[in-house]
Amino acid sequence: MAYDNYSNDQNGLETRETGDMISSRKVEGTAVYGSDSEKLGSIESFMVNKLSGQVEYAVLQFGGLFGIGSEYYPVPWNHLRYSPEHGGYIVNLDRKVLEAAPRYDEADEPQFDRTYGREIDDYYGTYPTV
Amino acid sequence: MAYDNYSNDQNGLETRETGDMISSRKVEGTAVYGSDSEKLGSIESFMVNKLSGQVEYAVLQFGGLFGIGSEYYPVPWNHLRYSPEHGGYIVNLDRKVLEAAPRYDEADEPQFDRTYGREIDDYYGTYPTV
Repeated sequence: MAYDNYSNDQNGLETRETGDMISSRKVEGTAVYGSDSEKLGSIESFMVNKLSGQVEYAVLQFGGLFGIGSEYYPVPWNHLRYSPEHGGYIVNLDRKVLEAAPRYDEADEPQFDRTYGREIDDYYGTYPTV
Repeated sequence: MAYDNYSNDQNGLETRETGDMISSRKVEGTAVYGSDSEKLGSIESFMVNKLSGQVEYAVLQFGGLFGIGSEYYPVPWNHLRYSPEHGGYIVNLDRKVLEAAPRYDEADEPQFDRTYGREIDDYYGTYPTV
């Protein structure tokens, strides 16, 4: 659950004092790196829980990396870690995991409800969190 | 603090089971209502903590309501409550409070850092939370 984020170091005191903010209007295009610091792709959007205001999934796009055009990969928020040094997010997942991950086509955006969320959670739930 | 949201009813079990999500690409234009259910304006953007993924401020615009053109009003997230019935957010603040609130002009967007956040928090901190 994304909610668990709130008790770990990533969101501790330091974060509150130094963390910067990003506008929902400027999310798109934020760089995404692998754990080897190599650029993997970018953020297409954040999926925000309307009630809690917590980003639950980051939708990633990998510009041609996997030979794929406009497919979007929703990844649970707790698999992303913001790196001020990189000015972007690090996704600490094996490429093979991402390659086989749930995705959708630009023209076929899913209804992003709990059922779809669970499908994503189930897939990534088997891999260790960053 | 927006973090406090996580222990109240608004984000309890019910939310997790029924809460839907909104894409950062579709945030703009979401309706904002007063406590009297009258439409006040709309969301211009969410300001998201890059590290925690928590929306800390919703930037509101009031289309001409106060006779003002393109001014943006950042409001702490905990003053907004999502209403599925309205399909939008309810801001339980007196209009006089909003009229005198910190704002910025479209052409003069501030550096949205901790200092600016504190300015907003200080203003709204004196008014009770929804």
